[in-house]
Amino acid sequence: MTASADLVPAGSFCGRLIAACPDSWTAYTRHPFVAGMADGSLPEPAFRHYLAQDYLFLIHFARAYALAAHKADTLDDMRYAAGTLSALIDTEMKLHVQYCAGWGMTEAEMAAVPEDPACVAYTRFVLDRGHAGDLLDLYAALAPCVVGYGVIGERLAADPATLRGEANPYEAWIAVYAGEDYREVVRNSIAQMDRLAVRRGGDARFDDLACTFRQATDLEVGFWQMGLDAAGR
Amino acid sequence: MTASADLVPAGSFCGRLIAACPDSWTAYTRHPFVAGMADGSLPEPAFRHYLAQDYLFLIHFARAYALAAHKADTLDDMRYAAGTLSALIDTEMKLHVQYCAGWGMTEAEMAAVPEDPACVAYTRFVLDRGHAGDLLDLYAALAPCVVGYGVIGERLAADPATLRGEANPYEAWIAVYAGEDYREVVRNSIAQMDRLAVRRGGDARFDDLACTFRQATDLEVGFWQMGLDAAGR
Amino acid sequence: MTASADLVPAGSFCGRLIAACPDSWTAYTRHPFVAGMADGSLPEPAFRHYLAQDYLFLIHFARAYALAAHKADTLDDMRYAAGTLSALIDTEMKLHVQYCAGWGMTEAEMAAVPEDPACVAYTRFVLDRGHAGDLLDLYAALAPCVVGYGVIGERLAADPATLRGEANPYEAWIAVYAGEDYREVVRNSIAQMDRLAVRRGGDARFDDLACTFRQATDLEVGFWQMGLDAAGR
Amino acid sequence: MTASADLVPAGSFCGRLIAACPDSWTAYTRHPFVAGMADGSLPEPAFRHYLAQDYLFLIHFARAYALAAHKADTLDDMRYAAGTLSALIDTEMKLHVQYCAGWGMTEAEMAAVPEDPACVAYTRFVLDRGHAGDLLDLYAALAPCVVGYGVIGERLAADPATLRGEANPYEAWIAVYAGEDYREVVRNSIAQMDRLAVRRGGDARFDDLACTFRQATDLEVGFWQMGLDAAGR
Repeated sequence: MTASADLVPAGSFCGRLIAACPDSWTAYTRHPFVAGMADGSLPEPAFRHYLAQDYLFLIHFARAYALAAHKADTLDDMRYAAGTLSALIDTEMKLHVQYCAGWGMTEAEMAAVPEDPACVAYTRFVLDRGHAGDLLDLYAALAPCVVGYGVIGERLAADPATLRGEANPYEAWIAVYAGEDYREVVRNSIAQMDRLAVRRGGDARFDDLACTFRQATDLEVGFWQMGLDAAGR
Repeated sequence: MTASADLVPAGSFCGRLIAACPDSWTAYTRHPFVAGMADGSLPEPAFRHYLAQDYLFLIHFARAYALAAHKADTLDDMRYAAGTLSALIDTEMKLHVQYCAGWGMTEAEMAAVPEDPACVAYTRFVLDRGHAGDLLDLYAALAPCVVGYGVIGERLAADPATLRGEANPYEAWIAVYAGEDYREVVRNSIAQMDRLAVRRGGDARFDDLACTFRQATDLEVGFWQMGLDAAGR
Repeated sequence: MTASADLVPAGSFCGRLIAACPDSWTAYTRHPFVAGMADGSLPEPAFRHYLAQDYLFLIHFARAYALAAHKADTLDDMRYAAGTLSALIDTEMKLHVQYCAGWGMTEAEMAAVPEDPACVAYTRFVLDRGHAGDLLDLYAALAPCVVGYGVIGERLAADPATLRGEANPYEAWIAVYAGEDYREVVRNSIAQMDRLAVRRGGDARFDDLACTFRQATDLEVGFWQMGLDAAGR
Repeated sequence: MTASADLVPAGSFCGRLIAACPDSWTAYTRHPFVAGMADGSLPEPAFRHYLAQDYLFLIHFARAYALAAHKADTLDDMRYAAGTLSALIDTEMKLHVQYCAGWGMTEAEMAAVPEDPACVAYTRFVLDRGHAGDLLDLYAALAPCVVGYGVIGERLAADPATLRGEANPYEAWIAVYAGEDYREVVRNSIAQMDRLAVRRGGDARFDDLACTFRQATDLEVGFWQMGLDAAGR
């Protein structure tokens, strides 16, 4: 966890959620899929399967922020969620499509890929927590993805063992999630969760929220594993 | 508030919500419509309009408990909500229809009556609080109805000034909500809210929940007033 | 209905919904509040009450488009809804706040005004139709507002009897909804509803959707009336 | 498909959905897990894992019927959904718990088992279809489970190759889903879907609904496979 101290303050609500499920968090952020991106050893079919599913993932991720905007009790909360929704479908998805084009995958191809059960499980779990609970439950289910990718990017970028240059086909992926733009996204989501935790009784609900966070983290582990399984690993 | 001390413990979460909006609570539980039932002076057209709208109200009230069952995080919470839903559509609605038959109104007639905006406002406000928030937000919006009718029934039944016997066409209504069956419903809803308040951080969220409770109470005032307005009062 | 022929094609799904409830549509689009804006006779307190409630209305209207984005089955549907959400909270609300400043009302004041039951009834009815049904039900409930304002703006702008110039304090309001920008919003919403009606079986569901559209139109009548009532008319 | 002709009329909406995805339907209803129950060869650990997950499944299945009751547009629709919800949590879950006790599993143990991603994927997919769409979308996602178990029970009970008597530890399971009580549940769900298909434009939406039905069927395949995987098959 030390490596992420910079990005995720230990005293933040999100930092406390991470600290409450150390095994799941490590299994997620140090998954063999991640290690394979760091040293360039990840089989390309694994990454390609991941990319296509990540396209479908982003659609439901965007739907989750739309739900957050709908559930907002204040204009600030609505603007935060709607801004993220807008960034996802207007910017992120287009970047993802461009990036995938570099791997020889078209948007039409990805849209036609059957959704992997691992993708269904994580995305619909998040949406269900949002419908069953309140905005804080929803953000607790979204946090492993938003924050975890930043933590992974930060660690891989800082690690001297990470393979650099053209030898590593995954360097661009690492650069995105280690980049200042994404770090800002992460910091904003941590701050938003801190505000909500105060207003929505986060301390009294910590155990339930930690359970949601851990389940979502475990489903992220399944999302990485799905990539490896597709490549027969 | 003293009259309801027996039914609603002052220290219960619901008791605290009532204490946070004394003016709205008084305007609701001592509305002229209520006073008119107590002394039998309420014009019959007012009561008839109220009864027909109350039929439509019960449908959306049942939908709110269905939403509560859907949002439940525990089997106990689900059983409580589903049991209430079942009681509402299998028992309460049939009793309501029987009771209305005594006033010469058939179920088909009531189902065909256009829903009054006062009924739309209250019922859909409750449902929206349920979708926007969690189970505690939903129950805070439902409480003025469930608990308020018990408080009104208790006070009118205990008040020596209440007109008794055949002279008061509204005596049966009062008897229902002053009866032990309904008091049990109220006590269970108060206990359920107390349990949820602990688990869902009710203390930290008290001001927001009190705002929801007050808005719902004000919409109950509108529901009584709708009856009087229909009778040209 | 003839006056709106240009903006709302008679054969469009929305045109058919309007044609199915002529009395409600006329009561809404030719309400005395509207006539008062046309000839400048509307009491200012009526308009001020309307403006403050319209601010609250816009918040829940935006939440309805967030719900639409969440419910979308295609990326195009999501982009349409998210784009409208974004336009509402980033552009429309700011314009509304600026416009209200011209009437001496600050955003803080409007945010603090208690929501009128007429506003609660309409906005929460729309949201409930969205939760109970699908995207087409939701858009059928939203259409009277989106399309109706365009129809009103078009008619008042074209009507030689409309009072022009500084003598009419409501001329700017009329200009907004008669303007090309707003007409484009209306045309897009009509086209979106036509696409959805095909995909979601609109013809087979016409009676139910017409019922939703009519109820929403009646609640718009209530919204205008709320303004007059506030001014003691 | 012939074997289920009796239970599922070919011309029913559900029969048409089944006919639209023959490969998925066969993979589901003739899965090796099912074959292993028929001849008694299914490893007990596979069945035990299935039973524990089915307990968790039933909870979310009940939540889906609660959502259906909430979304209902008519009292009949609400009574159907609420009756099913009630049957599930008052009767089915208790029978399931009793049945599992016969396999040496307590309710507390099952409630403590981590939910398998295959269970998360199917249940939350169903709930999401319900939130994104209308009642018909929700029932299309629920149908593979409700109807498929009846079809499986019917076929295994009728098949002379099915191992009978104490030699087959799964005979009681087969008897439940081949029993007249369960057949009545299936017939009612088919009839309810037929009514909804008429009212909600099912013919025009057939392709989308068939897609939902097929996805849900594929997730049922995953649910059986989860049992085998747990036993290392």
